[in-house]
Amino acid sequence: MKKAAIIGATGFGGLGLIDILLRHPHIEIRQLAARKDVGKQVSEVFPHLKGFCDLVVHSPEDIDLTGLDIAFFSTPDRAGMSLIREFYKKNIPVIDFSGDFRFTTPGDYAVYARNRGFEGDHLAADLLPETVYGLPEKFADRIKQARIVGNPGCFAVSMILGLLPAVESGIAASGTIICDGKTGVSGAGKNSGEANLYPQRHDNVNSYREGTHQHVVEVEKVLQSAGGGDRKILFVPQIVPLNRGILTTMYVDINKRYDAESIFRAYSDYYNNKPFVVITERSPNTADVRGSNRCLIRPIVDGRTGKLIVISAIDNLVKGQAGNAVQCANIMLGFDESVGLDVPAFYP
Amino acid sequence: MKKAAIIGATGFGGLGLIDILLRHPHIEIRQLAARKDVGKQVSEVFPHLKGFCDLVVHSPEDIDLTGLDIAFFSTPDRAGMSLIREFYKKNIPVIDFSGDFRFTTPGDYAVYARNRGFEGDHLAADLLPETVYGLPEKFADRIKQARIVGNPGCFAVSMILGLLPAVESGIAASGTIICDGKTGVSGAGKNSGEANLYPQRHDNVNSYREGTHQHVVEVEKVLQSAGGGDRKILFVPQIVPLNRGILTTMYVDINKRYDAESIFRAYSDYYNNKPFVVITERSPNTADVRGSNRCLIRPIVDGRTGKLIVISAIDNLVKGQAGNAVQCANIMLGFDESVGLDVPAFYP
Amino acid sequence: MKKAAIIGATGFGGLGLIDILLRHPHIEIRQLAARKDVGKQVSEVFPHLKGFCDLVVHSPEDIDLTGLDIAFFSTPDRAGMSLIREFYKKNIPVIDFSGDFRFTTPGDYAVYARNRGFEGDHLAADLLPETVYGLPEKFADRIKQARIVGNPGCFAVSMILGLLPAVESGIAASGTIICDGKTGVSGAGKNSGEANLYPQRHDNVNSYREGTHQHVVEVEKVLQSAGGGDRKILFVPQIVPLNRGILTTMYVDINKRYDAESIFRAYSDYYNNKPFVVITERSPNTADVRGSNRCLIRPIVDGRTGKLIVISAIDNLVKGQAGNAVQCANIMLGFDESVGLDVPAFYP
Amino acid sequence: MKKAAIIGATGFGGLGLIDILLRHPHIEIRQLAARKDVGKQVSEVFPHLKGFCDLVVHSPEDIDLTGLDIAFFSTPDRAGMSLIREFYKKNIPVIDFSGDFRFTTPGDYAVYARNRGFEGDHLAADLLPETVYGLPEKFADRIKQARIVGNPGCFAVSMILGLLPAVESGIAASGTIICDGKTGVSGAGKNSGEANLYPQRHDNVNSYREGTHQHVVEVEKVLQSAGGGDRKILFVPQIVPLNRGILTTMYVDINKRYDAESIFRAYSDYYNNKPFVVITERSPNTADVRGSNRCLIRPIVDGRTGKLIVISAIDNLVKGQAGNAVQCANIMLGFDESVGLDVPAFYP
Repeated sequence: MKKAAIIGATGFGGLGLIDILLRHPHIEIRQLAARKDVGKQVSEVFPHLKGFCDLVVHSPEDIDLTGLDIAFFSTPDRAGMSLIREFYKKNIPVIDFSGDFRFTTPGDYAVYARNRGFEGDHLAADLLPETVYGLPEKFADRIKQARIVGNPGCFAVSMILGLLPAVESGIAASGTIICDGKTGVSGAGKNSGEANLYPQRHDNVNSYREGTHQHVVEVEKVLQSAGGGDRKILFVPQIVPLNRGILTTMYVDINKRYDAESIFRAYSDYYNNKPFVVITERSPNTADVRGSNRCLIRPIVDGRTGKLIVISAIDNLVKGQAGNAVQCANIMLGFDESVGLDVPAFYP
Repeated sequence: MKKAAIIGATGFGGLGLIDILLRHPHIEIRQLAARKDVGKQVSEVFPHLKGFCDLVVHSPEDIDLTGLDIAFFSTPDRAGMSLIREFYKKNIPVIDFSGDFRFTTPGDYAVYARNRGFEGDHLAADLLPETVYGLPEKFADRIKQARIVGNPGCFAVSMILGLLPAVESGIAASGTIICDGKTGVSGAGKNSGEANLYPQRHDNVNSYREGTHQHVVEVEKVLQSAGGGDRKILFVPQIVPLNRGILTTMYVDINKRYDAESIFRAYSDYYNNKPFVVITERSPNTADVRGSNRCLIRPIVDGRTGKLIVISAIDNLVKGQAGNAVQCANIMLGFDESVGLDVPAFYP
Repeated sequence: MKKAAIIGATGFGGLGLIDILLRHPHIEIRQLAARKDVGKQVSEVFPHLKGFCDLVVHSPEDIDLTGLDIAFFSTPDRAGMSLIREFYKKNIPVIDFSGDFRFTTPGDYAVYARNRGFEGDHLAADLLPETVYGLPEKFADRIKQARIVGNPGCFAVSMILGLLPAVESGIAASGTIICDGKTGVSGAGKNSGEANLYPQRHDNVNSYREGTHQHVVEVEKVLQSAGGGDRKILFVPQIVPLNRGILTTMYVDINKRYDAESIFRAYSDYYNNKPFVVITERSPNTADVRGSNRCLIRPIVDGRTGKLIVISAIDNLVKGQAGNAVQCANIMLGFDESVGLDVPAFYP
Repeated sequence: MKKAAIIGATGFGGLGLIDILLRHPHIEIRQLAARKDVGKQVSEVFPHLKGFCDLVVHSPEDIDLTGLDIAFFSTPDRAGMSLIREFYKKNIPVIDFSGDFRFTTPGDYAVYARNRGFEGDHLAADLLPETVYGLPEKFADRIKQARIVGNPGCFAVSMILGLLPAVESGIAASGTIICDGKTGVSGAGKNSGEANLYPQRHDNVNSYREGTHQHVVEVEKVLQSAGGGDRKILFVPQIVPLNRGILTTMYVDINKRYDAESIFRAYSDYYNNKPFVVITERSPNTADVRGSNRCLIRPIVDGRTGKLIVISAIDNLVKGQAGNAVQCANIMLGFDESVGLDVPAFYP
């Protein structure tokens, strides 16, 4: 059994990791850390874990690196960048959930940081060239070698997986791609403030950060690396009253020579050997991926306007976060990428 | 007091009318009819109405036209077209909630009917030239004279109000406009079948009729009449787990000479004297129009891509249905259009 | 028009008052105050009020008492007790939403305060003998004369109205009455902390303060005053994932001489001329009182066990709070108690 | 691997079995049957199963009994009673989800049937003496030998597990026990009709079958067999807007000699070696058992009234249905009862 530590264990990201690793046949959780709840058993914080995981939560500084095989940082932005160096020195591979290690240059990070409203430079800029963007469907080979993986943003996963086949194959004509995202409230985390109290979220939908959401930077970088040129993404996120799930609807101009059938085939072929991406002729329901690491994608050609509509559905806490991270960990540790993740959705 | 009849009284559309007319100072409900629940008091069907409206539900054929000042047909498609002639003959103005009278030619209706999957011709094609599309913000003058008004589709209201200022003023460049809609489940009506049972809708979002929703026909017709040329709308509706509310996000190419400030001003000016359209600098929440006849609209210019994002929010059962119908009725009967409708949203 | 001030205007209690008073024909809002959001228009805090109520929020200390006819304190516990004396001196009648003025002796208050975990004595103990418990269905005569009214707790309303006929008429045998309450999340207020974030409340039910909820004190006091002796209430509240609504199920031992029919008649007679209490043979739905000042009550005699089951449904923010307060205000100001409150529920 | 058939595979009960058996190390699904959806792959009915279970749904009559080790009948009332004899003859153990085999005499069944409003006698009355009530925490020894197991009703599980320690040990004084249940909507099944459409269930709570719910019969029978005498249960179920979960609050008179500590210890001891019952000092949340086979139970002694409050939480589709059935199957097939079921709740 490989030995894992989770730093940031008492948020929804950490919880997602615990849930998955508890059923993982080759990775076991050995240490938990967080800023809050230090000294408590994690099952005091999340009572449903009682008897399944009763480890005590430590301070991040008190993690013992001896014998660790991998570390997950399900920490907020700018937490991992000062903590991860120690792990790097000791050659322990890490996966970070924030934007800290999603970019390979300080300049790209600066754009992200500006969107987020952060002050200050990256505190471990020298490590950025070592990092790999943790999307196994595109970068599995490099993830296998990586010592630091930046786990993608949840919306970014839904967009990149939906667009890669169209962009990489040349189906997508040049020009701005419009992405309209809908996310459940759990994406805002466990302590997300007054706006996400039940009475305010109940029976309510609204958009936010229209055109300025921080995940756009990484989507454009990845599409660029896939031959997408300097194409722009116009992304409008919306928060809807569901708990888990992201449905993103994308609108793409098509190069004239592609018809519906060839586009469907191109999508199917592109993800042919990817265990978690399912191309479907039925409109995806987020309920069909709840608790699952799958991404459902439906490409539709609109006959009247000649545009390609792509709809993708993920669970923001699984393929959009902890599930994707374990998929990366599997690759980094030499396992099949689907080990411990191959379970159907939780329905109804 | 003007005397009204409601045909189709026991669905959500009829209920919406009853709710509004109960507090209307100048219109009173005199007769109710429906296919289901004939012989029951409407307060047996909707117990919260007990003591407020206890009228007995009759068969549509049993409505007594004597002395009626107006009739609302909150009936499904193809019901009104055979019933309304009798009212027309007796010079009683009618407002129909279905697609039956939203078009002035049999040809336009045929396109709509095909999208809906209906068989058969329009059964009152000779009346179509008499009809007016019931959107007061655009057609108040003609509604005032009309004897048959086709109440708009709920999604259509959200799109047309969001797009009219951009199309009519020339802000919108030519080309397809993308509209991404999110609707609550009440839009599917009171008897909407297995797919809308609580366990199937709970924690679920999905798209449907991508590019082929029947409301697109009327949106394109109205924009055309507003100088929009033969511009196309690509509309993807999504059903989200809320009860009431539509949020539609629209993506429009801008003619270069318009900047953010002038566009915001153009929107504000366009709806300057329209009591129910509110142009706002805050992203609309559907909860802020729940139970209200308002339409909140936020136009945003995206600096990076140069596109105009327009977000509109309505209550699908009020400005998207019964509220808009009463607004039309007010105009037809010579009242101020906001009589009986000027109440704030139901929040939280 | 009578002139009202609302202190505590930016919580759900204050909002409820604003909503009702905006449609009240004889009371107008003249001043708003709160600790938070001072200097803002209330329509910045609650955007749906824009154009309906744009008054600026003042500090409670800055309320101008000149010309005021009534003041509502929708403030937390221990806020009103130090503020209300000023109003009392100037002879302005007040209605307080907290537990501060629900009791007429410092001793009774002390029991309440202990249940709530408060430190310290009542700061206006000399005013307690002046106060009246604000339940019009029982104390209308005294409310009419009162200068300080303590608006009841929301759960207390649902219990007292459900039990009064049984206790006062002698239907209820002696002994503990069991009350099992279910409340929506809005009852916890606008700033209710992490436990009421959407992801934690979604798809979740739990009990709390089993047997020790603070509303029990006032229920027992009122039943005692209605001839209930020193009977005890065992109350278990539960929080369920709805927004508004309280459903309380009560279990009462019956004196042998009462059968189902006579009990139903006793309940109907008891509330015969009470406009907001509806005795029904159909199980109450909280959705049927949403937004309404009604209390639906169904008494059922269980043949097998001989017990009386009483089920009551209210909207916790209306009959459980602001609606009940306006009903009191109507009485205090000499209006019919139902003025401004006689609207059907908001459904669906 | 043991070979299982599921009859009634396309409802929520069948789906629950598929979900669990897919991860079961010793039981594999070999055949699926249902009345609806015959000829389809089950993954057409439940798209999230695609790639996990793509078996074709057969008619119940077409199940091939050869080589079967166990059969689950997740069928409605009165379906299993005519189908199960064939399995019984071939010595294939069966577990039935309906009330058909929860009683050992036609007389007891008749009481149940009357509550349900069924016409007609039991069609396999001769098999009733062979049946065992499938509650492993009480009847594991007999389940081990059984050829026909009647899987308990979901509410019954929540009541019986909450009451057994009090009744069996003599903590509970004689007299009626009051049980107040709250259930999610999935308990009504996949095709539960207009009353369970999203708009009708959303933001709504109501009681139903007050005192007459069919599960009471089996609760009283089991408590009687545990020494409870002819004690009566007064049960009021309520439907609340959550998807999964039952929270039942029970009110029990205590024999004077038991105090809070000894009662808590008695509960803990009673379930000492039962893997799925957790006695807790924290009020149970249904979210903490969502997707889990656990039953959380909190016994509380109310100091003021001297009554015992017992709160139990289960997932109605797991410990209340499919999970409990697999627990029985494990015992019948000679496995440890927790095999395949030992997973934490799905949270958040």
